Amino acid sequence: MSGTMRQLVSTLISDGTLELSIATVDKPEPADDEVLIRVEAAPINPSDLGAIFGPADMSTAEAVGTPDDPKVVAQVPPDLMPASAPGVNSPRPLGIEGAGIVEQVGTSAAAKTLFGKTVALMGGAMYAEYRMAKADQCLVMPDGTAPAEAASSFVNPLTALGMVETMRREGHTALVHTAAASNLGQMLNKLCSNEGVDVVNIVRRREHVDLLSSIGARYVCASSRDAFAEELVEALRATNATLAFDATGGGNLAGQILAAMETAQIQSGRDVGPYGTTTHKQVYIYGGLDRSPTRLERNYGMAWGVGGWLMPWFLVKIGPEAAQKLREKVAAEIKTTFASAYSKEISLGDVLDPDSIAAFGKKATGEKYLIRPQK
Amino acid sequence: MSGTMRQLVSTLISDGTLELSIATVDKPEPADDEVLIRVEAAPINPSDLGAIFGPADMSTAEAVGTPDDPKVVAQVPPDLMPASAPGVNSPRPLGIEGAGIVEQVGTSAAAKTLFGKTVALMGGAMYAEYRMAKADQCLVMPDGTAPAEAASSFVNPLTALGMVETMRREGHTALVHTAAASNLGQMLNKLCSNEGVDVVNIVRRREHVDLLSSIGARYVCASSRDAFAEELVEALRATNATLAFDATGGGNLAGQILAAMETAQIQSGRDVGPYGTTTHKQVYIYGGLDRSPTRLERNYGMAWGVGGWLMPWFLVKIGPEAAQKLREKVAAEIKTTFASAYSKEISLGDVLDPDSIAAFGKKATGEKYLIRPQK
Repeated sequence: MSGTMRQLVSTLISDGTLELSIATVDKPEPADDEVLIRVEAAPINPSDLGAIFGPADMSTAEAVGTPDDPKVVAQVPPDLMPASAPGVNSPRPLGIEGAGIVEQVGTSAAAKTLFGKTVALMGGAMYAEYRMAKADQCLVMPDGTAPAEAASSFVNPLTALGMVETMRREGHTALVHTAAASNLGQMLNKLCSNEGVDVVNIVRRREHVDLLSSIGARYVCASSRDAFAEELVEALRATNATLAFDATGGGNLAGQILAAMETAQIQSGRDVGPYGTTTHKQVYIYGGLDRSPTRLERNYGMAWGVGGWLMPWFLVKIGPEAAQKLREKVAAEIKTTFASAYSKEISLGDVLDPDSIAAFGKKATGEKYLIRPQK
Repeated sequence: MSGTMRQLVSTLISDGTLELSIATVDKPEPADDEVLIRVEAAPINPSDLGAIFGPADMSTAEAVGTPDDPKVVAQVPPDLMPASAPGVNSPRPLGIEGAGIVEQVGTSAAAKTLFGKTVALMGGAMYAEYRMAKADQCLVMPDGTAPAEAASSFVNPLTALGMVETMRREGHTALVHTAAASNLGQMLNKLCSNEGVDVVNIVRRREHVDLLSSIGARYVCASSRDAFAEELVEALRATNATLAFDATGGGNLAGQILAAMETAQIQSGRDVGPYGTTTHKQVYIYGGLDRSPTRLERNYGMAWGVGGWLMPWFLVKIGPEAAQKLREKVAAEIKTTFASAYSKEISLGDVLDPDSIAAFGKKATGEKYLIRPQK
């Protein structure tokens, strides 16, 4: 088999613009241990947006291509333009994860068994008609799984699993999650409900309380309410949660959670000395929805920690065997616990529409786009 | 043996004052596994001041007793006065650590071997003529050690050792220390020099650079200098330090250190992706000289952590055997690595002098008081 394939790329051009376009490149031939995946579905995750938009100001985006060769350009603020960074003027492929059908295989046994299977892959360059992969990097789905069902097999499922696994490994028994109405947040509630782990969900808006309650979440606190601090302490006392994953990052929220955890520990009867209780309270920041500085009042004793957390680094830390177990759990439960819903399906070309960009660029709760590269 | 003994106490009185006074109490009789220590020397550590002063505003301190029964009272700001907390109106003994001679012993073999020895003890109530202790809690000093030499055997030595031990256990190879001209900071430099561990010392004032350089510190950065950020990066690159112990706590310093560590890692050639380098950078806050909130800009990728650190909790975490090894190292090197210097020696009664209180309450670098309860 030979020929060409279409692939979405983002190019930072030295004149100070960012260009999104569709490149036509050679379709590769698998080596012995490789397979060629016909990509059928790939989601736009919040974590994809950084690579798509780069440092550009997307409010300046305008369509400049032709119907046959659509293009979008946007201006990069001069102070954010790298002088001569590696990568300037080089088209970068996009798309962290996706799924498809194995259409061509190498000569190794591992590659051959994948022929015709639905597989998911995380590794970049998934916004394309085809993607080459090592056989052992593919996550094989159970028979009867459509690629669209398997498109989001890594980022959200492994993040949710990684949070629960971190909780167990670090000796906590319940979790706090912020920005909890997100796709990830809903998935985390399903997972924890299965595993008998309590989750304290923190959301901003009243309608997100209703959304999470409707899927069975038991503890939901709205940070916009006057009684937020008291309600959070109450939920923390009921669950004994001493670990939080915070997607917002900036502002007072991480510190508010630590303070509420300490108050809950004291109300639960823990000994409290001049340095607070000895119960370790931890917040991991895994996103940066609020880009302002993190502000810690330190009014919760000395047994606390705040730090960054990234799912891929966590998988490296626990080692390949433990990570593979988590991946296999995702495949086994891809239609239930780890099912994703999308608000819209679009083609590769549709990504280059300024109106689409404005919509998926908002990272709004409930908005998630699925790219269908074959359409 | 029987009789009475004098003991310094701090009493929070329900009328809204704090009273410091000398209580006369019964001298206790040792049980089988106990020994009675005649306390000869006990330091005033910064960590003692919280217990001595409580919530009182010490600028209002005034002497109100008689020469035979000296007393100091100070006003507690009404909003800091606990309504009916346990401990109100009860005299609290003071003094975290100290040393003395074992004057009377119980019947157990462990107790008997201590008779006449110089021992150090951490456990409170050391600002007193006598202190009862379990035999196995006493740290026995080498023959020929005077109690004054052994008075500071725990707080500073075990904190310095705990920092180095934390560094090793968490996979770092060099240290950053703030407020580094302190007694503790000087001791840490001596210890690390012996152990071949690099320390990056951060101080505020120019004269503290000279002080540390004069005792052989190789890396000293003054945060008051315009070129502080660059000089810190340079020292971090030279040492590859990725762990800091911060005594200040508030403000931007913890974040500045993390940012400088990340810059040093990048300059040293580490791979840097969209989430920064994968090198974990850690700041432990072990004091609160700056009571303002900690402000983290998070401009150093995702491989970072900030948290509280307390020496006694660290000793619990590593377990009794490992902790005992550290204590024995202190005893063996009490006249060299872990020697302390004092700016003034005072009696129990001298502590109740408002001028003394103003002096040792300042926590000034180089000022450290030693209480001599027998004088």
